[in-house]
Amino acid sequence: MAGNSFGQLFKITTFGESHGAMIGVVIDGCPSNLKIDEKFIQSELDRRKPGQSKITTQRKEDDVFEIVSGVFENKTTGTPLTIIIRNSDQKPQDYKHLADKFRPSHADFTYSEKYGNRDYRGGGRSSARETAARVAAGAIAKLLLKKQGIQFNAWVSQVGTVKMKDSEKIFSNKEIESNIVRCPEKATAEKMIKLIEKTRKEGDTLGGVITTVITNCPVGLGEPVFDKLHADLGKAMLSINAVKGFEFGSGFEGTKMKGSEHNDSFSLTPNPSPKERGMRTLTNHSGGIQGGISNGMEIRFNVAFKPVATIMQDQQSIDKKGNKVIVEGKGRHDPCVVPRAVPIVEAMAALVIADHFLRNKIYK
Amino acid sequence: MAGNSFGQLFKITTFGESHGAMIGVVIDGCPSNLKIDEKFIQSELDRRKPGQSKITTQRKEDDVFEIVSGVFENKTTGTPLTIIIRNSDQKPQDYKHLADKFRPSHADFTYSEKYGNRDYRGGGRSSARETAARVAAGAIAKLLLKKQGIQFNAWVSQVGTVKMKDSEKIFSNKEIESNIVRCPEKATAEKMIKLIEKTRKEGDTLGGVITTVITNCPVGLGEPVFDKLHADLGKAMLSINAVKGFEFGSGFEGTKMKGSEHNDSFSLTPNPSPKERGMRTLTNHSGGIQGGISNGMEIRFNVAFKPVATIMQDQQSIDKKGNKVIVEGKGRHDPCVVPRAVPIVEAMAALVIADHFLRNKIYK
Amino acid sequence: MAGNSFGQLFKITTFGESHGAMIGVVIDGCPSNLKIDEKFIQSELDRRKPGQSKITTQRKEDDVFEIVSGVFENKTTGTPLTIIIRNSDQKPQDYKHLADKFRPSHADFTYSEKYGNRDYRGGGRSSARETAARVAAGAIAKLLLKKQGIQFNAWVSQVGTVKMKDSEKIFSNKEIESNIVRCPEKATAEKMIKLIEKTRKEGDTLGGVITTVITNCPVGLGEPVFDKLHADLGKAMLSINAVKGFEFGSGFEGTKMKGSEHNDSFSLTPNPSPKERGMRTLTNHSGGIQGGISNGMEIRFNVAFKPVATIMQDQQSIDKKGNKVIVEGKGRHDPCVVPRAVPIVEAMAALVIADHFLRNKIYK
Amino acid sequence: MAGNSFGQLFKITTFGESHGAMIGVVIDGCPSNLKIDEKFIQSELDRRKPGQSKITTQRKEDDVFEIVSGVFENKTTGTPLTIIIRNSDQKPQDYKHLADKFRPSHADFTYSEKYGNRDYRGGGRSSARETAARVAAGAIAKLLLKKQGIQFNAWVSQVGTVKMKDSEKIFSNKEIESNIVRCPEKATAEKMIKLIEKTRKEGDTLGGVITTVITNCPVGLGEPVFDKLHADLGKAMLSINAVKGFEFGSGFEGTKMKGSEHNDSFSLTPNPSPKERGMRTLTNHSGGIQGGISNGMEIRFNVAFKPVATIMQDQQSIDKKGNKVIVEGKGRHDPCVVPRAVPIVEAMAALVIADHFLRNKIYK
Repeated sequence: MAGNSFGQLFKITTFGESHGAMIGVVIDGCPSNLKIDEKFIQSELDRRKPGQSKITTQRKEDDVFEIVSGVFENKTTGTPLTIIIRNSDQKPQDYKHLADKFRPSHADFTYSEKYGNRDYRGGGRSSARETAARVAAGAIAKLLLKKQGIQFNAWVSQVGTVKMKDSEKIFSNKEIESNIVRCPEKATAEKMIKLIEKTRKEGDTLGGVITTVITNCPVGLGEPVFDKLHADLGKAMLSINAVKGFEFGSGFEGTKMKGSEHNDSFSLTPNPSPKERGMRTLTNHSGGIQGGISNGMEIRFNVAFKPVATIMQDQQSIDKKGNKVIVEGKGRHDPCVVPRAVPIVEAMAALVIADHFLRNKIYK
Repeated sequence: MAGNSFGQLFKITTFGESHGAMIGVVIDGCPSNLKIDEKFIQSELDRRKPGQSKITTQRKEDDVFEIVSGVFENKTTGTPLTIIIRNSDQKPQDYKHLADKFRPSHADFTYSEKYGNRDYRGGGRSSARETAARVAAGAIAKLLLKKQGIQFNAWVSQVGTVKMKDSEKIFSNKEIESNIVRCPEKATAEKMIKLIEKTRKEGDTLGGVITTVITNCPVGLGEPVFDKLHADLGKAMLSINAVKGFEFGSGFEGTKMKGSEHNDSFSLTPNPSPKERGMRTLTNHSGGIQGGISNGMEIRFNVAFKPVATIMQDQQSIDKKGNKVIVEGKGRHDPCVVPRAVPIVEAMAALVIADHFLRNKIYK
Repeated sequence: MAGNSFGQLFKITTFGESHGAMIGVVIDGCPSNLKIDEKFIQSELDRRKPGQSKITTQRKEDDVFEIVSGVFENKTTGTPLTIIIRNSDQKPQDYKHLADKFRPSHADFTYSEKYGNRDYRGGGRSSARETAARVAAGAIAKLLLKKQGIQFNAWVSQVGTVKMKDSEKIFSNKEIESNIVRCPEKATAEKMIKLIEKTRKEGDTLGGVITTVITNCPVGLGEPVFDKLHADLGKAMLSINAVKGFEFGSGFEGTKMKGSEHNDSFSLTPNPSPKERGMRTLTNHSGGIQGGISNGMEIRFNVAFKPVATIMQDQQSIDKKGNKVIVEGKGRHDPCVVPRAVPIVEAMAALVIADHFLRNKIYK
Repeated sequence: MAGNSFGQLFKITTFGESHGAMIGVVIDGCPSNLKIDEKFIQSELDRRKPGQSKITTQRKEDDVFEIVSGVFENKTTGTPLTIIIRNSDQKPQDYKHLADKFRPSHADFTYSEKYGNRDYRGGGRSSARETAARVAAGAIAKLLLKKQGIQFNAWVSQVGTVKMKDSEKIFSNKEIESNIVRCPEKATAEKMIKLIEKTRKEGDTLGGVITTVITNCPVGLGEPVFDKLHADLGKAMLSINAVKGFEFGSGFEGTKMKGSEHNDSFSLTPNPSPKERGMRTLTNHSGGIQGGISNGMEIRFNVAFKPVATIMQDQQSIDKKGNKVIVEGKGRHDPCVVPRAVPIVEAMAALVIADHFLRNKIYK
């Protein structure tokens, strides 16, 4: 069973390769009569697209999308909603020299072995270009959830060794988008940008961490014992290119606490919103999820990204026949993908919540 | 869509509550003619069972299992294999005083809200008792994979703030099982045990980290773009009670490295085993998985456990009607579940690999 | 991917063999707070159980069921609901003489070839004994749907060449259960019973047809383009042992009509029930389903059963090694399974409707 | 859970509406390194396309397909294979007069009620235009299975009341394609064509039956107890527009036989092909499937099609608001879709066999 679908009820299937005709996504299960805001979808794609600033790759893709099914008179019909994005700035010849070589820490070797063939043009299907389709689908999920008041805010909390100070606050989209590195702490953002520029000049790359907060999520989302809300969020995040780790709530640091410190006390709110059902916890080490089910508090998680594998330095490697070869450091690349990954993380989070929002309807 | 099944081809469905008649698991998709080793299954359950040492809960469950379908003349038939484990040491009356109260950082509140009811007896379905069924199923998966030479070794690498020194080595089952805390560094193990005993006396609890290594995994397992091998491992681990985080390979620490340091160089092995296809990487920051597909190197990951929510101290909380109440600290509990979680982590890892092993057969 | 689960949201997994310890079913996805009526479940099982009358097999199974999970204080909890039925009247020795022989038109040969082994005791997993688990699960589905007023009525409309006269009416459960052959036309029923008794004496067997009507099904169930309501009903019926055909509405006879005769005209009802939305069709060649979606009219379909393969006559066959052998006609058998299949057909219909009832909630 | 995907391992998802930009299909799970024969795919689409002869609708669609992902250097890569077909001869204005009216025996009413909206342009998603995507996907499945020697031959065995004489033979593709009605009995074909022409002049429509034979299917395909091979074939056929019934092997007629007549005796073949494993049955009432698993004999089944609902006569109906209205008989239509449905039936059969072929690999 191949793995190009995600979600159970709000289910997406993505298709397309980095240098094929197009990439796209079919959403099967989007409820009918959802009003489509095309400007919003484009703005989400623009946050992900290459060439958006001096700290990203210079590949030029406008990522203009087209809805080719499932929408009639500007509303979803309940039938499969398909979005396609044509590839325009393809330079497959840039990759010809790599056709037989295995780039270190890329998917070249494993794809070759698994499938017995290889689309060497820009990584083919393994390219992060595929995530544009996820962002488009995630925009539809966000439109669906916006009606429930559910919001997604992700930001860059770490680049290389530069970390944000504040790890408690929730930042607004405006604060996040106020700079090109998508870090809402101004001073930290500047340090990050400098570090990225310096690293780019060295032909090297950086990793980092994205912090995400989901606000206004209703109580009750998540399907134990296997499809716990955080388990599905974790899988969603780990399916993004270059991700190496996921933690929610207190995460890895929480392992050092005692139970008496870690437990989140319940408290009544004086004027509860309908989402909260009047219940809050005084702390939120649970990260908004208890027993695998959302408890109405903010859902908070971190996603770790490794440094990009494509570097502008020559590397020793091996080719298909086992010969030692040099993989040359040339072409276009991102010195740090983390800023561009912010909308991808949000999109995957929205897809998980949309799916669980529909799944929870069974109990109503 | 409820979430009590896991896996696509090697698919398990677990059932049962902490204080119901039994817990159990149906495995649908186990290949036929696998020889069943009942002693091995029992030994796996024994590693998880309560009351196994002075540092675990004193609930007495022998966890005797019974295979009630799918095996004929000691071999699997290819039909659903069902294992049941009767609950014996049930004391539902121990929980009567909790029937209306929401225990902090438990699933009481969220289950009540989601399902509109609550089986208060020991947490009902949300109890970690359900994981015995996973361990039984995982034992079947291990038997299947043992024929391929694939091995699973997990150990406790951190309890509270006590951490192991060595984070590179692979430890044998014998080293791991040499002490009750399942930490293969003798000196560290002693510190951990002391810390657990001290914490138990305080009526408090501890979290920790389990490190897992899968050896001899063939190249090619994993189904991009969503069912990447590490994404399914991550989901599997996050579905275990009390887990807060997952990282593989370089993990969160890897975010601080540069691409040129992080990339794993390919190298040829002089006498390759068939699993490796002659290819190794000199370092293994990838954690044995590249592009979501196993590359033949050791698969290595860490799982973070929060401190147990059940503490032997009185806690402020709230009941169903919103009254302030005291949740008393009494009953049986584990001061630190991490040692008992070792076989659970291994079982879930085996279930993921068995599933992907079957999924990869399509390409042969 | 093995095939022992049915349904997407109201999902069942059955397990167990004819002569193993037990058969059973796990229902994952039954909404919480459904009141369980154990008497009703038993009465459904009693309609299917062997030895219920002179025209059925004399195997004695009381088919006493036990709910071992998912129900607390007599209500469903929303967690997996498991029902087990122990096998009591097992006589595996009765089958020893068949261990290497392939019984004609049984599953012996195909199971042997597919799985590379064979549980020869009464057909193992291929036995219709498995359908007891379906009837138990179907009873839960019926309880869920009864709250919506949805009803299921199936009856025997043909045995061998004896057919009912009336093919338009809807019969009540009382009329159906008024005789042992479950045919609501008294005179026809008597003919059928005589035919069955005569055929039993000849050591031979009969097939037949079951007609089913679902009343009060709301408009809107069914998920085009593949999971059309009648497509899922058809699959459900065809999955029952001995079924050879399925037709709904005008069925095979409808192929001979012209469009102008076959089209069902819409009409308004003066005092519409909420289910109908005020719309009726003057004829119902559509069988209550248009475009794969229920239209509020009665859903009507027929299921064809072949004559039972186990006959009390010696038959020429072949064994595992290719030797010619005689399969002796001895043991216990049903001369005609159709009367006992009535509750099975109803159960599978109820499972399909329950599943689509939940699936349709997404659009609300 | 919406229903636009079919298959478990060889899984297709179709998208698109009759008068949208395009229709298409994503195949996820097609094994890698399959050589693509574009001419064959086009020839399959040509057999289904409108306007192909005087007895079909005059809508002009060339049904030119484009593979936009999953194929590199003319071979499948193992990643999602997407085929799109642009709609060219759209005349949505032809349907404007129907926007509020419910056409009898169409999906207008049920789609409106289910989704709360309606794409009235040519039936939108409910149009049989969607089946072009199935035919394209089926062509890929056929290419995969051709390597195993598996063949699919379907023909029109009945139109209205005109039936073929021979119900035993297997006809070749050449015989079937020798006339425009796709009936391999010349004299019967002529009668059918005359009947269709006469009926067209009356503004009326006809139904019919398609008989299908699958030859060279290996022993072992099918996954009891629910995903029996014939159950999945039945669902596949019933999911095709206008289908009302499915039977395999002896089918509905077989209900009238006795067990002693119906049972298929096993026999050894002198020079067995590898597919048969040396075993044949002397008769084939089982239709090539026993216990839900293929037995190596020809798989044979019939599919019943109702007369097309679109007639060129005025019909009484009702509109959205409940007013009585006339649905005028105008526009383009097929007097009998059965000849054009032949490649659709074959395509769905190929998709089922491809899926089960992959599913059966688990046991190897």
